[in-house]
Amino acid sequence: MAAKVSPLAPERFPALPPLAGVRIATAEAGIRYKGRTDVLLMLFDPGTTVAGVFTKSRCPSAPVDWCRAVLKGGTARALVVNSGNANAFTGGKGRAATQLTAELAAKAAGCREDEIFLASTGVIGEPLDATKFDAVLGGLVAAAAPDGWEEAARAIMTTDTFPKGASVTADLAGTRVTVSGIAKGAGMIAPDMATMLSFVATDAPVAAPVLQAILDGATATTFNCVTVDGDTSTSDTLLAFATGAAGGAPLADAQDPRFAALKEAFDTVLADLAQQVARDGEGASKFVTVRVEGAESDASARRIALSIANSPLVKTAIAGEDANWGRVVMAVGKAGEPADRDRLAIWFGPIRVAVDGERDPGYDEARVSEYMKNREIEVRADLGLGTGKARVWTCDFTADYIAINADYRS
Amino acid sequence: MAAKVSPLAPERFPALPPLAGVRIATAEAGIRYKGRTDVLLMLFDPGTTVAGVFTKSRCPSAPVDWCRAVLKGGTARALVVNSGNANAFTGGKGRAATQLTAELAAKAAGCREDEIFLASTGVIGEPLDATKFDAVLGGLVAAAAPDGWEEAARAIMTTDTFPKGASVTADLAGTRVTVSGIAKGAGMIAPDMATMLSFVATDAPVAAPVLQAILDGATATTFNCVTVDGDTSTSDTLLAFATGAAGGAPLADAQDPRFAALKEAFDTVLADLAQQVARDGEGASKFVTVRVEGAESDASARRIALSIANSPLVKTAIAGEDANWGRVVMAVGKAGEPADRDRLAIWFGPIRVAVDGERDPGYDEARVSEYMKNREIEVRADLGLGTGKARVWTCDFTADYIAINADYRS
Repeated sequence: MAAKVSPLAPERFPALPPLAGVRIATAEAGIRYKGRTDVLLMLFDPGTTVAGVFTKSRCPSAPVDWCRAVLKGGTARALVVNSGNANAFTGGKGRAATQLTAELAAKAAGCREDEIFLASTGVIGEPLDATKFDAVLGGLVAAAAPDGWEEAARAIMTTDTFPKGASVTADLAGTRVTVSGIAKGAGMIAPDMATMLSFVATDAPVAAPVLQAILDGATATTFNCVTVDGDTSTSDTLLAFATGAAGGAPLADAQDPRFAALKEAFDTVLADLAQQVARDGEGASKFVTVRVEGAESDASARRIALSIANSPLVKTAIAGEDANWGRVVMAVGKAGEPADRDRLAIWFGPIRVAVDGERDPGYDEARVSEYMKNREIEVRADLGLGTGKARVWTCDFTADYIAINADYRS
Repeated sequence: MAAKVSPLAPERFPALPPLAGVRIATAEAGIRYKGRTDVLLMLFDPGTTVAGVFTKSRCPSAPVDWCRAVLKGGTARALVVNSGNANAFTGGKGRAATQLTAELAAKAAGCREDEIFLASTGVIGEPLDATKFDAVLGGLVAAAAPDGWEEAARAIMTTDTFPKGASVTADLAGTRVTVSGIAKGAGMIAPDMATMLSFVATDAPVAAPVLQAILDGATATTFNCVTVDGDTSTSDTLLAFATGAAGGAPLADAQDPRFAALKEAFDTVLADLAQQVARDGEGASKFVTVRVEGAESDASARRIALSIANSPLVKTAIAGEDANWGRVVMAVGKAGEPADRDRLAIWFGPIRVAVDGERDPGYDEARVSEYMKNREIEVRADLGLGTGKARVWTCDFTADYIAINADYRS
């Protein structure tokens, strides 16, 4: 697997301070990997609420089915995550494995089964031996401590080349709260070792439906605006936990003035994590921001932005440092959204390369070629139709992506 | 540019006999390439009818706009095609270039401008100097001869590594007719040098609306079921011309018993050409047939088959000779079509690898790995829901695709 760290990685894992109400432990259960941690346990104090967003795949993994079912209860006491095996497309064996894992975890943590949340990432189609959790869960509960976010981020890595974390504080009407999260994923939303998982916790007091609203809203502009290869995992899972340990009355109403402040904190953490996923895109050599403006609606702009960000031809051109705006025109045209060729304008970074449906009169190949040498590239398209806009993060598409994915199982 | 011929190419260009009512000539106009032909002229006898299918791109090229407009007349006397420049995203200059080309061609061929059909393939966004046609059109008309299909196929190549042609004969109620065609394209439907163009002619007598119905029907299961990278060109053009030189009353009704025989001939020629496009997919090392069965409808099956055939992760696995059926599950799941994970079965060639939502009990990695070494791979998914089925052709996704497309313009 890819051993060298992505050239787009942050310099270091950020400071993630202990978060009141959350304890963390990791272990080596030997599920697939040797010599590294592969199980993460997070314990939450009583009263912790939970919200979740899951893959849209019609073939979801067994843990996704499990989480969707128990999420209805709205409370969480523990999260158990393993890497190395996705427990996806494992039929009845997969359902039995989630049931057994939840039983074992509930017993170890001293809570109900429906307060246990599960996620698995790794190979699809291999039965997961859940008895391996039995050997480690007791020790994990005993060892769980307030610190350990970086170790948590490492335990859930698969093809990731660096652990991903982010944390911010916010002022909720005089109460200082923290929102911290980790993520893994190296093809957005790609199967096998590249499922996207993210777990976020806050000590803010939040009722489950409000937490869900905040998570849905923040996901729309962050994790749902990142793509590596357009492939959708069976296992994508984003869970948010609110312990309430910071104190104060539960935030139970979107009209509460604290809502906007907490939403902004979630936006920041999720945006940071989503960008880190794109920066760790398999084989990535450049981080790419695609902006679409002037579309008929924000939704239309997002579909066009994703059409650009998912185009193999746009992404290979960026890998080749080629300002190939003809391929951007192609990707706008194929999106199937309202577009008028003769009003379209395209920029690479600050340089407008096309306007009014043709090459910019001041087009200077040397100048734009120089820009394309940057590690971070912005592609912008203005459709000239309306006020809809969107922003999507992705990476370029290199021969290393092929090498990683053509050789993966062997 | 790709120099070596695709390992999936047919052994030789097929025999395409002269077709009554069609004359062909090619020339070197120096539009972009040196030392090769880059302009094709086909002349059709008076009374030739025409039908066309074009890109669905919202940003079509100027020649596509031209053809859509003149197609309404239903008759054709000449086709002018150039390679090296797509005349796409060229604004008012592009429209002027098509107008001038049609004027020059109509003058040279002695017909009306609205009987001239145009197609261009090559770089997007570069103005096309249509005056270059002036220097060659007179000579082309003078030189046009009944033979020359292979030369025609060569003149329209861009990143293609081999010329593509196909021909069949059919018996239309006692009259023997021929359907012959050529194509170019090496990323299905991809921009720059990989636009898909195809031109088919028959000496059968066919009214334009019936020819259009035959072409639409044949396209649905052939050219619309081939993909290399899922990118949609601004310029894709398929035109069919019927000279009527074989004699007989015009086929003017889909109930005419000759309709089915001619449709079958078109099906055969278009399927052959479409498969040749996939066999010349940029960087391809394996030809892949994706079959989906048991879907809720044929349309649903086709969308699922295209989801599999366009998945970078499925295609890189095939390049790596990895029977990674987990990625097929992923691609079925992401298609957004009705699917029941626990009824899904998947085959590679004759080997069932997954059934009832999990790995086949008789799964034998060694046997399926041996199968994956073949040049021609079949992936089959049975959804177990209904009777809908589809078949899509594609190729694998190799590091050569990246090399070709990352280095293309430089």
